[in-house]
Order: sequence, then structure tokens, then C-alpha cells
Amino acid sequence: MATVPSVSYSITVRLEVPAGGQAVSQLTHAVESAGGVVTALDVTNAGHEKLRIDVTCAARDTDHAQAIVDQLEAIDGVVIHKVSDRTFLMHLGGKIEMKSKVPLRNRDELSMAYTPGVARVSMAIARNKEDARRLTIKRNTVAVVTDGSAVLGLGNIGPEAALPVMEGKAALFKRFAGIDAWPICLDTQDVDEIVRTVQVIAPGFGGINLEDIGAPRCFEIERRLRELLDIPVFHDDQHGTAICVLAALTNALRVVNKSIDAVKITMAGAGAAGNAVLRLLLAAGARNVVVCDYLGAVHKGRDDLDDSLQWIADHTNADGYAGDLRGAIKGADVFVGVSAPGILTGDDIAAMATDAVVFALANPEPEVSVDEARRHAAVVATGRSDYPNQINNVLAFPGVFRGLLDAQAGGVTQEMLLAAAGALAAVVTPEELGPNYIVPSVFHPDVAGAVAAAVRESAGGRARGFTEA
Amino acid sequence: MATVPSVSYSITVRLEVPAGGQAVSQLTHAVESAGGVVTALDVTNAGHEKLRIDVTCAARDTDHAQAIVDQLEAIDGVVIHKVSDRTFLMHLGGKIEMKSKVPLRNRDELSMAYTPGVARVSMAIARNKEDARRLTIKRNTVAVVTDGSAVLGLGNIGPEAALPVMEGKAALFKRFAGIDAWPICLDTQDVDEIVRTVQVIAPGFGGINLEDIGAPRCFEIERRLRELLDIPVFHDDQHGTAICVLAALTNALRVVNKSIDAVKITMAGAGAAGNAVLRLLLAAGARNVVVCDYLGAVHKGRDDLDDSLQWIADHTNADGYAGDLRGAIKGADVFVGVSAPGILTGDDIAAMATDAVVFALANPEPEVSVDEARRHAAVVATGRSDYPNQINNVLAFPGVFRGLLDAQAGGVTQEMLLAAAGALAAVVTPEELGPNYIVPSVFHPDVAGAVAAAVRESAGGRARGFTEA
Repeated sequence: MATVPSVSYSITVRLEVPAGGQAVSQLTHAVESAGGVVTALDVTNAGHEKLRIDVTCAARDTDHAQAIVDQLEAIDGVVIHKVSDRTFLMHLGGKIEMKSKVPLRNRDELSMAYTPGVARVSMAIARNKEDARRLTIKRNTVAVVTDGSAVLGLGNIGPEAALPVMEGKAALFKRFAGIDAWPICLDTQDVDEIVRTVQVIAPGFGGINLEDIGAPRCFEIERRLRELLDIPVFHDDQHGTAICVLAALTNALRVVNKSIDAVKITMAGAGAAGNAVLRLLLAAGARNVVVCDYLGAVHKGRDDLDDSLQWIADHTNADGYAGDLRGAIKGADVFVGVSAPGILTGDDIAAMATDAVVFALANPEPEVSVDEARRHAAVVATGRSDYPNQINNVLAFPGVFRGLLDAQAGGVTQEMLLAAAGALAAVVTPEELGPNYIVPSVFHPDVAGAVAAAVRESAGGRARGFTEA
Repeated sequence: MATVPSVSYSITVRLEVPAGGQAVSQLTHAVESAGGVVTALDVTNAGHEKLRIDVTCAARDTDHAQAIVDQLEAIDGVVIHKVSDRTFLMHLGGKIEMKSKVPLRNRDELSMAYTPGVARVSMAIARNKEDARRLTIKRNTVAVVTDGSAVLGLGNIGPEAALPVMEGKAALFKRFAGIDAWPICLDTQDVDEIVRTVQVIAPGFGGINLEDIGAPRCFEIERRLRELLDIPVFHDDQHGTAICVLAALTNALRVVNKSIDAVKITMAGAGAAGNAVLRLLLAAGARNVVVCDYLGAVHKGRDDLDDSLQWIADHTNADGYAGDLRGAIKGADVFVGVSAPGILTGDDIAAMATDAVVFALANPEPEVSVDEARRHAAVVATGRSDYPNQINNVLAFPGVFRGLLDAQAGGVTQEMLLAAAGALAAVVTPEELGPNYIVPSVFHPDVAGAVAAAVRESAGGRARGFTEA
């Protein structure tokens, strides 16, 4: 919930209003009284009786934008023609395109890029399949694959509705790591079909980024694809988040001068992100973790444990704590939430240990009021850009894939994820480090390169398979 | 078989040669005596004892390039380090890339292109799936899908080896029609799996271009996908070829002043292209056609007829001619070959009717020597760029898909193909028309636009399904 009008909710309302002395001031008054900010106003057609006017204003969110439109519509004689917004205009026609890297100006160039010249290139690859990494787009291409089942915080909205998100992801891949990513939106949510489809289309790609696929299906899909394919498969909602959390926690613990193997960590959320975060924290040395889901702490005595919950029960909560999140967070040094909005209060944070670290990553509404958390904890991080310490996967996935592609890695290992987290944490220098600066900005120029170098080095040329913690 | 050295076979040989008075002249002499043409020579490293030299020269073909290298290697003391060629250099790292159309310079732009702004765009599409054609890449995107089973004249070389061809195709889509195409190379040749995979990945694309999939599997794949999908599915090897052949034949018959419903047409080849060409010629009014495959004329009495051959037998060869191609071509007005190299002689062409039209489209070696054909026929067309009247699918598919996407067509109809062929033929003006100019150059600026307009008009907004002739 944005608290101030934001450009990401900037709308333009095209309307008609009876011509007259107060026509325009009535409009601006309506916008402002609804809490909007007028940023532009254009009379596009002035007749004797009617004016056509475009009013552009920033709103807080969708409901607020609607409230502004309602307020305008309530003015006597106003007819609303069309409401558009800058965000929609930016998405019109899609956000990415394909570009040819070769000129095709004449027959000579055609004959080299296509027939007959291309035949020799194809035959070279037919003789040695690995040459595809040298002579084709495979060496720099990632498929951004989704089934549309768990898109952002929007849930199961399907493959077409997921496409704008996947395009955005592809644009980020290019912007931050020079990678050519292409969205593949699947019209199925069947695990076997997803696995088989990705396997069948894999030859043209150097890596697979799984995106916004719901738990627990995402675990099996990723595991099976990693076994089947000779290119890296990386579910960003899991491992991208895990890398960012570990990097941020590494720096947060430096700020409060605690050690990861000594702190008590309470987690909320046992879905895709929760699982991956947990595994990476354990791999990094965490020893005292309690994970809660909506039924309370995960422990061996629960009778509803599926495979992934069972794994959690076997590797955490050695004391067998069986209470709720509120109890689990008491005295904890670290809270990591990848769950649901507003499940904790300031009092819960106050009940944590001294110099508590709170990562409330539910988006767009965190697990606890950010202001409340900041009042009681030493370090607070969220997924939001309007507070310090934004934990954003853009910090990880571009560099991770850059490193994987450069190393021509055949797989992803836990060591690579640890290396990526270490490199990301190290972008923040000791001089910069502080309670309000535990992760670099996504626009920090060193981030992708540092992460890529660490992954490439960890891959050591070529890595295959996957080793879980 | 190119008869003169060509840029598409231009190689650079990096070698070491003992320093001495005649070192360089020995090299150029060797290239020339092997029939190559030296286009550049660079001494990249000159030591007291050895020189390192890059020799660049044009060759006729792969064997010839090898012969030149052999000749160089035969020189006393020469060590060949590396043979590269301009074509391979052009393909290094792939020929296409993904580009973002939106700037991502700051948080505001990130928040509009990705979270949180993108969420509203996704929700709009979730409410109305058709909005994907407005708000995503779907409206300008085509998947270039192959299973690598019938790539160019190279045969079943697999998905990785097909990738350079599909990249080239994608580059042509952009160059000639501004379409964003992306290669999808399938690691399966099973019909059911291909159909299901394309269906599953379809949501992100506005059209499917099937490419280099072998007959007869291509027929069933296309038919089933057209039934399943609400976007156009177009197998270019079939329909692109058919459009070009009909356009060229329309103009060739104008040159010789004959009418399509009166001429005797003999075809060689009953594969993907042959089938589609035949169906479109019949739809355009051809009434007297005999199709031959490698077993001779297709007629009802043959006991080896599969579904597509049976269709041919039912719709052609009313006289039940049961002989071979050589017999079938006697007295024919038109020969259309989409088959194999060198199956006819000049004498066969001489046995055709007066003012014969010969389309010998086998690539790169036509069904009959082009020089022989030109001696005996009034109009000769081939797939080659080194003779007049090159019949090249680039004349059709970019414009066809431009028209389909602009019309938001849900399918492809025979009427659209006829309209495309008519528009393509009409690009050649009556003043330009002649025996050596029956189709425009692929670089003619009007081609794609004319074809697109015809297809768009034929689609009449939105068309669905497919009507066979």
C-alpha cells in the first residue's frame, strides 16, 4: 500500500465538460479533494458548448485512481470518455522486441545469414552439438518460463496475464546483465506437462529461469528439469530470493555483531521462497531455525507434513516447538518473513532479542508495519522501494545467469548460490554498511558483475547436476 | 553448386610459413592454382624464422575451400593454424538478440515496467484475455518452430543444428516485416508431442510459423494445431512456397499468353511443398495436373498411397497416367519441380509444349541444368540467386504474417493464400513483366506491404479456422 501518490499509478482521464467559467477549476479541485496530484491538464478540443480535456494525475493505487475518477464523474455535466495511465501506455504492444544482429542489406549478406551459407554452420553443429554454444544464440539466451499459477501477489491468473510480468523480467535480464531472455508462458499447470514442455524446447536456450510457479509444484518441476537438462535451471522465486536474503542477513548480522551460527532465526512462510531461503541459511551455517506456516511452527509431530514440510521438520526446530508464530518469534534474533501481510504487530517485534533483525518481505504489504518494526528492531528490510534495505531479486538473478552462461554451466549448485550471496553482500563496503544500508541499490553498477564473477568462479568452467544442502 | 567463388564461402586461413623471399607469393599462387580468389592477405606476426599470415579468399563451396586449404598445406614448411570463414564469423554468438523497448533508468521506470505497476496490466488481461493482444508482445510475435527433421537440404540434423537457420528466419521476419520472431527448436519428432508442446507455449505468441518439419508429419501437425489454436499456424515450407509458385506462374503464363485452367501442368515432388503447391494451383483454377514422386506418376491405381498421396490421386491425373516423370512431362505446358537435383535433361524440356514454363526449385541443385532449361523453355525459374526469376519464400512469409498479425487473424484460409499470391504477382508491373522478370526481387520495397495488405483484407478483421481447397 503506497502512502503517497506514485508515478506507477499515474492516470490520464479524457473527459468532456460543459464549457463555462469554472469548468477547469472544478476538475482540479475534484482531483485534489480526492487526494490526487494533478501533473498535467490539456484542453484537447474547445467547442462552444463542450470542452474535451485530458487530466493527468498521480494516485496511490488502483482504488485511489478509481476514487479520483468517481470524483470527476460526480461533477455536474462531466462525461468520462477514457481512463488510461502511463503504466498501461508503457506496456502497449509489449515491452520487448527481437532484433537482428546481422545486416541483411543485399544478397551477399542474405546468403551468409541464411541459405546457402547457414548450411555449413548447421552442419558444424550437427557434427558437434556443443558448437551451438558458440555459433548460436544459445550461449546468451534464457527462457523465462511460467505457468501463470503464482504471479507476483496476484495468484493464479494464467499464462496470458503473466506475460507482462515475464516481459518485464526479460527486460531486466537485458538491462542488468546483457542477457537475451524470452518469455515462455505455458498453457498448462500439470507438472509432467510443464517438465516435458521445457525439456522439449530447451535446445534453443542456455538456461531456464522458472518464474511464478506455485509451491509445491515448483519443487518437483525444478528438481526433475535439473536431472533432465544439461543447462542450468533456476527458480528465481526460490533461489533469487534466498541469495538476496542471505546477502542481506550477512550484512545485517555484521551491523548487530552477531554470528549466523549463534542466532535464533524465526521464519514465516514455507512456500517456494521459504524453502529455498531456509536451505541456503542452513548451508551458510544457521543452526537454530524455526519455520512457521499458517498452521504454526513446523515440527516433527505435525500430521500434515508433505515432502517439503517434512524436510523442514527434519532440519529445523530441534526443540520441537509446537506453538504459533507469535510464540516462536519471542527472543528470536532474526525474523525472516516470506509469507502474508500484517501477521505481526510492533509488540511481537518488541518481544524479540536485543538488536533484532527483521526481514518482512511479503509484497506489497509486509508481515508487520514497517514503521512499527523500525521502532523495535535494529535492522529492518522489506521488499518495498519506499523504505531503506529493499530486498529485490533484481540484485541476484541477472548476475547469477550471467555467471552461469559465461561458465557454460550445465547446472546450479548450492555452492554457487552461497558464492553469489557472499559477492552481493560484499558490494556493500565496511564504510557504507549500516542499519539502513545492508544491500546495495539495484542500480549499483557493481552488483551484477560481482555476482556473475562469483558464480562463474564457483562453476569453475562447467558444472553439472545439482547438490542440495 | 556455385560455379564461381562466392562470398558465402569466403574463408580466412591462419597459417605459419618459414620466412623467406617467396613465402607470400607461394601462398597466393597456391590459392589461385586451386581456383580460389585471394581477397585479403595480412602478415599478423613477422619473426626471423617464421611469418604468421591470414589469407582470406573466396571459394566455390565447402569442398573447394578444403581443396584450397590442402593446396596451402602442401607448401613445404606451411603449418595451418585455423581455418575460419566470414559466414561462421557472422554467426558467432547467434544472429538475433532480445531488446527492451522500455527504459529502465530509475525506480519510477522499474515500478511501471515491473512491480508494482505491471500488476494492474496483468489484472486487466486476467479479466479480458484478448487484451494480451494490446498490452503484450503477443500482437507482434511469431514462434519459428522446428523439430530439425527436414532442415534446408540437409535433412534430419536435429534441433541444435537447426537453430542457426531458425535465427536467420527470425532475422528475415524482422528485416522484411518488422515482426518479432523467436526460434523454438524442439527436442522431439513425435507428432503428438510437437502438437502438445506448441499448444502449451502458444499463449505468448500471435502466430506460429512451422519450419523444416518433414512430410508427412508436417501435415498432421499443422492440421491439428489449426484446430486447437486461436492464432494462425502456417507451415512456410508448404504455403510460403505455394504462394510464390502461384505468383510466379501467374506472371509466367501472362508472358506466354496461356491460361491456368487450360495448361497441362506436370509436377515433380509430392512432399510438403509439392502438396501445398498443388492445392493452391487447383484452388487458383488449374485443371490438368499430373504429380510425380520418385515412383512415377501418382494415380488411383497405385497401392502405396498414404492419405496425402490418395488426395493427390483423387484430385489430379484424370486420365490415370501411370508412367514416369519423363513421360508425364511430354507435351506439358508447365513443369513445377520441388523434388530432387538432376532428374531431367534438356531433351526432356525440349519435349514439352511450345513456350514451356519450367520451375526447377530443388535447392541448391535444380531438377534440370538451368542453362539447358533456358535453351528449350520460354520461362525458367529456380530457387537460385545466380539466375533470373529466383523463387524465394522471403517473398511471401514476412508479408503473410504481417497481414495476419495486423488483422489479429485467428487462422489461415486458402483465400488468404490466393490473395497473397495475387498481390505478389501484381508487384511486377505489365511494363516490367518479361521472361526474365516474373517475380520481384526479395529487396523490392513493395513486396511485404502488398502481400500484407492482401492478407489483411482477405482476413477482414478476424478470421478463424482453416478452409482447405
